[in-house]
Amino acid sequence: MSDDGDESDAQSLGITKRKEYETGEWYAEVVQKADLADYAPMGGFIVVKPRGYALWEQVQENLDSWFKATGVENAYFPMMIPESYLERESDIVEGFDPEVAWVTHGGHEELEERLAVRPTSESIITPYMAEWTRSHRDLPLRLNQWCSVVRWEATDTKPFFRTKEFLWQEGHTAHESEADAWEETMTRLEQYNRLYEDVLAMPTTLGRKPDHDKFPGGETTTTVEALMPDGKSLQAGTSHYLGTGFAEAYDLTYRDEDEEEQVCHTTSWGLSWRALGGLIMTHSDDQGLVLPPTVAPEQVVIVPIWQEDTREEVLEYCEQLHAELDADGVRVVLDDRDERNPGFKFNEWELKGTPVRIEVGPNEVDDEEITLVHRPDGETETAAREDLTDATEDALDTVYAKLYADAEANLEENVREAHGRGEILGTLGQHGGYVKTGWCGEEACETEIKDQIAAEIVMLPLEEDTDPVHETCGVCGEDATETAFFAKNY
Amino acid sequence: MSDDGDESDAQSLGITKRKEYETGEWYAEVVQKADLADYAPMGGFIVVKPRGYALWEQVQENLDSWFKATGVENAYFPMMIPESYLERESDIVEGFDPEVAWVTHGGHEELEERLAVRPTSESIITPYMAEWTRSHRDLPLRLNQWCSVVRWEATDTKPFFRTKEFLWQEGHTAHESEADAWEETMTRLEQYNRLYEDVLAMPTTLGRKPDHDKFPGGETTTTVEALMPDGKSLQAGTSHYLGTGFAEAYDLTYRDEDEEEQVCHTTSWGLSWRALGGLIMTHSDDQGLVLPPTVAPEQVVIVPIWQEDTREEVLEYCEQLHAELDADGVRVVLDDRDERNPGFKFNEWELKGTPVRIEVGPNEVDDEEITLVHRPDGETETAAREDLTDATEDALDTVYAKLYADAEANLEENVREAHGRGEILGTLGQHGGYVKTGWCGEEACETEIKDQIAAEIVMLPLEEDTDPVHETCGVCGEDATETAFFAKNY
Repeated sequence: MSDDGDESDAQSLGITKRKEYETGEWYAEVVQKADLADYAPMGGFIVVKPRGYALWEQVQENLDSWFKATGVENAYFPMMIPESYLERESDIVEGFDPEVAWVTHGGHEELEERLAVRPTSESIITPYMAEWTRSHRDLPLRLNQWCSVVRWEATDTKPFFRTKEFLWQEGHTAHESEADAWEETMTRLEQYNRLYEDVLAMPTTLGRKPDHDKFPGGETTTTVEALMPDGKSLQAGTSHYLGTGFAEAYDLTYRDEDEEEQVCHTTSWGLSWRALGGLIMTHSDDQGLVLPPTVAPEQVVIVPIWQEDTREEVLEYCEQLHAELDADGVRVVLDDRDERNPGFKFNEWELKGTPVRIEVGPNEVDDEEITLVHRPDGETETAAREDLTDATEDALDTVYAKLYADAEANLEENVREAHGRGEILGTLGQHGGYVKTGWCGEEACETEIKDQIAAEIVMLPLEEDTDPVHETCGVCGEDATETAFFAKNY
Repeated sequence: MSDDGDESDAQSLGITKRKEYETGEWYAEVVQKADLADYAPMGGFIVVKPRGYALWEQVQENLDSWFKATGVENAYFPMMIPESYLERESDIVEGFDPEVAWVTHGGHEELEERLAVRPTSESIITPYMAEWTRSHRDLPLRLNQWCSVVRWEATDTKPFFRTKEFLWQEGHTAHESEADAWEETMTRLEQYNRLYEDVLAMPTTLGRKPDHDKFPGGETTTTVEALMPDGKSLQAGTSHYLGTGFAEAYDLTYRDEDEEEQVCHTTSWGLSWRALGGLIMTHSDDQGLVLPPTVAPEQVVIVPIWQEDTREEVLEYCEQLHAELDADGVRVVLDDRDERNPGFKFNEWELKGTPVRIEVGPNEVDDEEITLVHRPDGETETAAREDLTDATEDALDTVYAKLYADAEANLEENVREAHGRGEILGTLGQHGGYVKTGWCGEEACETEIKDQIAAEIVMLPLEEDTDPVHETCGVCGEDATETAFFAKNY
């Protein structure tokens, strides 16, 4: 029998905070109790536990295969960047003063030049791209690296959302023309979008950042934004068209077919483990983690329910189900622990976010059936034993569709039009979500809203580019040139 | 036509140093000209280019799948470790004073406590393992991370062999018993060995390090050693049985089935991108890189050889070969560049290490044949067009076997017995390689050799444990307890 009382352990499974009322505390509790991550001894750093890292591996595998299928090659650049290299970037970008971690000593010696732990790698990658690019035949040059970066921002630690160190991928590419570089920028934005739509069950909105909020030194920053259930927008991946500014500064040029020297057009694009933060925040509930079947480490758990006299037949039946599903490529576990009762197991696998539970008791055995229970809504269905794999796969698809539909409903309900300072502030204050309004293009109009309420223009949605929602700016009343989405954000 | 003369470019392909006489310079030239890596602006750091990183990805994919199939889970711990955490390790390990990179400032502020960029992660991982381990049911606990580490050793940079920053994996495990931990230690050592034997075409010798050279604070360090063509031994992967020392220091304990508190037995094991250094050094030659087909980014290159009047038929034939091999899962490229002649292409693909070249001219088309040329020995064979895939796969297998056999011959020729100071020094000085001799177990006897010639005891081979090669120590003449392999090393 158990050396731990089921009851005392059951407490450790319970999520004590409510998502709706204490979102931040609830999120932190889910992350820890579902064994995704722990806090490091130094503020701003986290430890990603195996169940959390497995989610990151799913993100990596998907994106990496799409990148490679579209001409990207992985590489690895140093994690440290000499101060003079960063300063060179300051020459390009006015006011560039990154908050970085500085390595000043190696062993017992002080370094002659301080080294920054990379906050992003344009300043060290672009000079190499310049060295490797001679002719138009060397283009396009598409590099990517999976690595950790550090940005020394002093804020409260929020696992995956806000950490000084985070894991990400950063892509850096060079092209012959603006058109090629723009196509690249959009290809990566669409791949990020695909990740959210098809893998993480998260509907998104594609947009551009206002010029005053774009990547420093670049031309245009495009963004995938995801609306969280607490009404805040998550910048979930960005893809930058950098124009020729970086290429000019780093002498990244090529000889075209006519032997003329030309300046490259470059892009960069990155997606970090914030994607996991968004995933956890979007779907999870007061019972714990909720995961789409696409990324769940275990898609299905089989829980046997028996008395002493039915133990053998129930377990044997379960083992057969397990073997069959496993052979059919379903990620399935059989929870045949003797020392835990079914109720405890239900709670534990719900906490861990397993999308489908198959319950098997003597009745199921007698009737040659299975009972399938969906996470998160507890919907229960019965299927014939002989339809095991089909029924299970249908249930997994249904769970994905439900998660997506719920998130989509949240997004659709929370895009509101408003015009005039009062209405914009009132709508943001009352509902959160996105407030769309006409915008004149002046940062001052954003500032006016931002000063009143912690919301800003998170994007200028791509599909509304040509047709502003209002003829005049929602803040100043001058002519509107585009539609702006105001929101609070992460 | 080409805007670069074939001739001037051809020079950039040539390896100017000879492997046999200027091994170090030759190695550096191969690494750079085969586009594997470049030097970073700071000494000790390198940039791994796509063709180099693709080799590391092969190492990762193989090891990672074997690790996971044997119960290992990936995780991610912070890249920085507080000084106090490292100091705690100094309490465990006398004289522990790692040469690390110190982060002292974040943004514009000095940190209250310095942070080390991780040189290895025992000191930060073990406390978490202790926190996560309560009962025997939590064991074994097997964690691994793929990451970069930094050791601030002041030496000349040698890509993949000697760099301040390097990529590796580090595994950390906890077990109930010494037997379990030993099994783990050997499982990982054997997986490292499998990587060399079955993937990198490198024969190895398994051994233990002498006690004075084991992992600080551990019980036993086991090692995979590979003999390089220059007669030096490469420590190509190590797996440590750490005993209970770390577990005691970090309170890594568990309750056994009788509710008794027990101390865990732990292991750690790591393999770095040195594996790539060994791979490049072992097989490559004066024409450039040589790769086994298992890891070559392109296993086969098809080179068409045509005159104006045969161009169309030759190219069409080549395209068919390419499509068929590709469909059959061979990594194949068709080099149909107009602006390069066949000789240039031959040189370029030889430099890049492509294992098999298929040459197609009008004769091959007329006779429905293909000509296959092996890298590195240039052996040429002809096969019927209809046997394309079989013949190609045979050729790839043959290339692997040849590479392995050559390396094995080098190993076998270079293990020599010697007894007595003079003989040991003479044999090492004349031939390099391994000198095996009886050893009494005293470090002083190693020091005596080391002081004369830069060679040390690189291993006590596992299979000779019970039966020393000589009855007396080859250095001091006292009773020998084991067989020691002396060698120069990397």
